[in-house]
Amino acid sequence: MASTPYTPLAAADFDSAYPRSRKIFVDGPRGVRVPMREIALEGGEPPLAVYDTSGPRGVDPAVGLPPLRRAWIEERGDTAPAASRRTARRALDGRPVTQLHYARRGEVTPEMEFIAIREGLPATFVRDEVARGRAIIPANINHPELEPMIIGRHFLVKINANIGNSAVGSSIAEEVDKLRWATLWGADTVMDLSTGKDIHATREGILRNAPVPIGTVPMYQALEKVGGRPEELTWEIYRDTLVEQAEQGVDYFTVHAGVLLRYIPLTARRLTGIVSRGGSIIAKWCLAHHQESFLYTHFEEICEIMRAYDVSFSLGDGLRPGSIADANDEAQFGELQTQGELTRIAWSHDVQVMNEGPGHVPMHLIRENMEKQLDWCSEAPFYTLGPLTTDIAPGYDHITSAIGAAMIGWYGTAMLCYVTPKEHLGLPNREDVKQGVIAYKIAAHAADLAKGHPRAQAWDDALSQARFEFRREDQFNLSLDPVTARAYHDATLPADGAKVAHFCSMCGPKFCSMEITQQIREAAARQGVSADEAIEIGLAEKAAEYRRQG
Amino acid sequence: MASTPYTPLAAADFDSAYPRSRKIFVDGPRGVRVPMREIALEGGEPPLAVYDTSGPRGVDPAVGLPPLRRAWIEERGDTAPAASRRTARRALDGRPVTQLHYARRGEVTPEMEFIAIREGLPATFVRDEVARGRAIIPANINHPELEPMIIGRHFLVKINANIGNSAVGSSIAEEVDKLRWATLWGADTVMDLSTGKDIHATREGILRNAPVPIGTVPMYQALEKVGGRPEELTWEIYRDTLVEQAEQGVDYFTVHAGVLLRYIPLTARRLTGIVSRGGSIIAKWCLAHHQESFLYTHFEEICEIMRAYDVSFSLGDGLRPGSIADANDEAQFGELQTQGELTRIAWSHDVQVMNEGPGHVPMHLIRENMEKQLDWCSEAPFYTLGPLTTDIAPGYDHITSAIGAAMIGWYGTAMLCYVTPKEHLGLPNREDVKQGVIAYKIAAHAADLAKGHPRAQAWDDALSQARFEFRREDQFNLSLDPVTARAYHDATLPADGAKVAHFCSMCGPKFCSMEITQQIREAAARQGVSADEAIEIGLAEKAAEYRRQG
Repeated sequence: MASTPYTPLAAADFDSAYPRSRKIFVDGPRGVRVPMREIALEGGEPPLAVYDTSGPRGVDPAVGLPPLRRAWIEERGDTAPAASRRTARRALDGRPVTQLHYARRGEVTPEMEFIAIREGLPATFVRDEVARGRAIIPANINHPELEPMIIGRHFLVKINANIGNSAVGSSIAEEVDKLRWATLWGADTVMDLSTGKDIHATREGILRNAPVPIGTVPMYQALEKVGGRPEELTWEIYRDTLVEQAEQGVDYFTVHAGVLLRYIPLTARRLTGIVSRGGSIIAKWCLAHHQESFLYTHFEEICEIMRAYDVSFSLGDGLRPGSIADANDEAQFGELQTQGELTRIAWSHDVQVMNEGPGHVPMHLIRENMEKQLDWCSEAPFYTLGPLTTDIAPGYDHITSAIGAAMIGWYGTAMLCYVTPKEHLGLPNREDVKQGVIAYKIAAHAADLAKGHPRAQAWDDALSQARFEFRREDQFNLSLDPVTARAYHDATLPADGAKVAHFCSMCGPKFCSMEITQQIREAAARQGVSADEAIEIGLAEKAAEYRRQG
Repeated sequence: MASTPYTPLAAADFDSAYPRSRKIFVDGPRGVRVPMREIALEGGEPPLAVYDTSGPRGVDPAVGLPPLRRAWIEERGDTAPAASRRTARRALDGRPVTQLHYARRGEVTPEMEFIAIREGLPATFVRDEVARGRAIIPANINHPELEPMIIGRHFLVKINANIGNSAVGSSIAEEVDKLRWATLWGADTVMDLSTGKDIHATREGILRNAPVPIGTVPMYQALEKVGGRPEELTWEIYRDTLVEQAEQGVDYFTVHAGVLLRYIPLTARRLTGIVSRGGSIIAKWCLAHHQESFLYTHFEEICEIMRAYDVSFSLGDGLRPGSIADANDEAQFGELQTQGELTRIAWSHDVQVMNEGPGHVPMHLIRENMEKQLDWCSEAPFYTLGPLTTDIAPGYDHITSAIGAAMIGWYGTAMLCYVTPKEHLGLPNREDVKQGVIAYKIAAHAADLAKGHPRAQAWDDALSQARFEFRREDQFNLSLDPVTARAYHDATLPADGAKVAHFCSMCGPKFCSMEITQQIREAAARQGVSADEAIEIGLAEKAAEYRRQG
């Protein structure tokens, strides 16, 4: 990779973020080793292993992560070095090299084995969901550093964090740092939305340090190449940009190919028109040229390029609503129908696809989005931005949108694009990225619980049991953000003794309801009956006895 | 009131919290003057008036708020000075003095007129909802400082903020300050959950400075009177506590009368037993005495006391689940059925009632809570604590619970009890109170939108329009927390010029999607057609023309 001088990652790494966790590896078939985060517990409780996105530790960002997948990719024998770039590969002779292609052939790839262990599900199930198009494994052959993951509604709900510089701010080193910071807290994929200078070098820094899939909107870079004037975009410039990014290793491309000429005027009736950057660029091009966009007219050629590197589609929603008032309108749903058509075309080329969704939607209109997407897009994974459930809280849109994200995740959305507290106001800094990721881990986990994922329930149960048993350290360490949980506790009761005391700061020593419940249970136990037996026998005499015993 | 020395309220008062807002008063019949917060807008837009809970300004906390309702109460002629306390009143001769009683008689009280203006609904509708028991107006005759408000599912969703000292921390002055702080940000009611020393004086300070209804859990003070030993509680001690608090002016009492002996053993099977303080105190008393609690056996006497002051019931859910694992279990739903019985008994005494609900509930089990409560409790208002939708995020439970609160608010819950980031960890400080209130204003407002409240939609539309028109100052000022929104914006683009620039920090000057949409609209306008006409005519020639014009 380019020898850009990076600042080292900041101190808040794995050990300081998760003081009682360690990274473990679960060995699977064909040499896969799946990282998990194991949380040590007290009181003889077994440790809890949880999904881990933080990636390899102690790696010099100027060198990049080890190429975990290189051998898997090379062993398949269906790729060769690409002409244009020393380290890049591409498919031989137009052969499909996508996980969808392999799955349809009935193959279980090492990537699928890896995912099966990560998710706790059979590898054949992973394969079948990918073959059906209900799940994707974004895994460019030029991103060997990737720890494979899956996006589909029968798996854990995933979250995406957006990073990227703009004309106004931030450096490459900052963006790489944000990437590692976002994955430390649990981002499952990261989108590099850079629009400023150094787009290529920023992306290179990000990809070589990314244990998670990286998504981009190639149109942003294409536009840079024509000086920011949408009318001057051409298919050739866009195509070359796709190849450039595919050879760098981008795992999924947002392509706003569903923005058709006939949908554009529908947005003029809206309160907030077109708010997607990609959508507005295409709209301006379409109006200037009075043609359907080259994304639509060249869609099959785009598929061929993406197939040669296994880049997945994230079919953009360029006409998503930008306000509560505009939710679920004709423009939005017109584009969604076209997304469905394009999904089936991509599948016919063996290319993996997910569909992007809104945006800003009041609660009562959220379900309709999911139902139409499942129907019109043939159950391809849905990937939504929030949605925000109200517009009146700039500064808190991680919360307005976590509400909508949790709900649509429960309804079946496979990946949730985070929103930070800075949404609509400015570029997120490190703390904003963390706040956005944690709000979305909450939304995704709440959805996993509501969908009945067994691993999700086990985590909640472990924390609740620790709480009930006054294992305070465990309660901190099992939380999404142990250090903050501990700091909040210490703000009221700083003494170490308090962390093992049988009461908490809310109630004080005489008043703890959990302590009283435990006394009730113990009283039953002293009388040699289980709680269930006590119910059977009837509580009458037992209670009287308990009272006599004091 | 007692001459406790209060520190003055901190600087963050109305003007600094809402820089471009002013308090206005809407005059109604019978001398009612309803405060609203009017937000001034730029660009010739009319100001937006929003619901305001902040109460009178510039009042010395040692003196207390002006007695807005005194004349209304005295004019009714159905109360007289109480024997026990110089300034207190009680009903004459056991006459009902409740808003429910007046509503059932067909009377529209000044309180109802006040509420009708606040909510933008006919006063007769307010009266009818109260008469039916579907809404309550918590308004103790000894709380004349109160600005009346209503809790019912056909009105705006309300939020409650808990404050209160405990054995471990905080002073009276701090609690009064938290009260004013909570109502400044939008708390519709405040519960004083003090358990430490100075319970009476703390409550007095709070009530005399409270423009919103104050709720308490009288059991906490009763327990203080017996040295914290639940077994030693008696009906007489509890009864005297009710009278003491009713004469101070408490507007609603949480009474855990639904905790029956037969439900208690059901909690022993749980992961986290009994987590409600009130519930565990009663459970301990019941087991020690092998009797149903005096709350249940003396319920009709409690009704008589509450009727004499118009204290509303908040029928407690002492057996609410304390973890995701325990949601919607037999113990919880057993108690809910009893809450329903007690609701109808209270109504037969002309006493207003709402029902408390959970707690910790995964998303897919939330709706069942609402449906059973509406059914079993005959549509009395529901008042839930969150619910939290996952247990794995201590430090962020304002978010885990805002998700559940928004959903259950949409389903029909009338009031949402806030949860702060310190939940399960420690006592909330000023900043935690604000974070909790704002998260819950978001949840309540999202619910209002989903329920189709016209005033809710107007607020979102005003903000979205300001955003689309690059009226940045308006976007800040229309947000729930203008100062934070502005600070987040200034962190990226500090120059004043940027606030009127036609781009934002996310996209930079060449890239703004909203700007591009406006250009598209303007191009259509220049050609003398509306957006709708452009759709009719077909876009073809217009687009070509636009291109020729550059």
